[in-house]
Amino acid sequence: MKHLKIVALASGSGSNLQSIIDAIEKKQLNAEISLVVSSKRKAGVIARAEKYNIPVIVVERRIYKDNIRGFSAKIAQVISDFSPDLILLCGFLSFLSEEFCQLYENRIFNIHPSLLPAFGGQGAYGIRVHRMALKAGVKVSGCTVMFVDAGQDTGPIIVQKCVPVLEDDTEESLAQRVMTAEYQAYPEAVRLFGQGRLSISNNTVKISQRKDED
Amino acid sequence: MKHLKIVALASGSGSNLQSIIDAIEKKQLNAEISLVVSSKRKAGVIARAEKYNIPVIVVERRIYKDNIRGFSAKIAQVISDFSPDLILLCGFLSFLSEEFCQLYENRIFNIHPSLLPAFGGQGAYGIRVHRMALKAGVKVSGCTVMFVDAGQDTGPIIVQKCVPVLEDDTEESLAQRVMTAEYQAYPEAVRLFGQGRLSISNNTVKISQRKDED
Repeated sequence: MKHLKIVALASGSGSNLQSIIDAIEKKQLNAEISLVVSSKRKAGVIARAEKYNIPVIVVERRIYKDNIRGFSAKIAQVISDFSPDLILLCGFLSFLSEEFCQLYENRIFNIHPSLLPAFGGQGAYGIRVHRMALKAGVKVSGCTVMFVDAGQDTGPIIVQKCVPVLEDDTEESLAQRVMTAEYQAYPEAVRLFGQGRLSISNNTVKISQRKDED
Repeated sequence: MKHLKIVALASGSGSNLQSIIDAIEKKQLNAEISLVVSSKRKAGVIARAEKYNIPVIVVERRIYKDNIRGFSAKIAQVISDFSPDLILLCGFLSFLSEEFCQLYENRIFNIHPSLLPAFGGQGAYGIRVHRMALKAGVKVSGCTVMFVDAGQDTGPIIVQKCVPVLEDDTEESLAQRVMTAEYQAYPEAVRLFGQGRLSISNNTVKISQRKDED
């Protein structure tokens, strides 16, 4: 597996970033987090990054209002010095412009706390996703790691993991259980990427066999 | 678990019925298949039922054309002598009227070869469901046992089981893998029903704890 330079974009605590940091520290991933970009000035991800001596740059989303292109262009400018191989969205509460998605085509991952296509799309983020799942009465939920495209939760799916929905689940208890699956899924997807095993055809992800001691 | 009298409705081979027959023979279910209603004169389910000495009545769907009410009323008439506790749809390719669904409210199960709400609704039946799943590029699929209501795959969900989608899957190989999950899921749902553990609230199914040696 080649050494990956990763840039993470986050708006909150960046708990999913922790799964990547942990996998790197355990040598399960040959990678480094080169930079964290926070879209909020007081996001918890900032302290998390500082704890691991990861540089942080804040690009405030609120300043750009509905100017997604300007916001995305600023992020592109900020991260270009770091020449990232891969961009990971870790609870990043903004869209990215089509230009940005094209610039880093097939090199941006996001993670979503449901088994897409269920409970994705507009308004489906954070705890709301689990509210939707409980309201629908599903007995299985999970998480999805996908490539980011210009659509909303429509990019090609890389990894999905299931968890049971239990009888006495609240939104919070279900979120917690799905998060344990996310901690598995995100590093797994990054590893497949680093091993060069992912390709996209017809908007679906093909995962090639392992070739060697990757 | 009380002894259940089950009527199965089928249009094809009724392979899902086999999972119930097997569970009964293994004493995993305290139940009997009192009757099979086939909506086709030459369905494979007829030979299957005869093999186990289960009575079969054919109510041909094609005769009723778009008269779902008449077709459903005929089935209701035919099965009333058998006083079924539970009606199982086993690859039954027709809708049932609202009157029928009300008559047997909360006593009709169906099984669907995907993790609903994904890949359900109009046109989503049989191998087409797996075609949709492969086209969407999901990495996890499965099956859903649900109560039947007047909608299409919208009834309260009782049991769901996951299976992985593999790299070289065809519609057929995925169908096969999902079917192994269906063989687990359908008897499990029937057992929960027989144990009196299912209740519906807000269109979701609550499963109560086991009380005794059910």
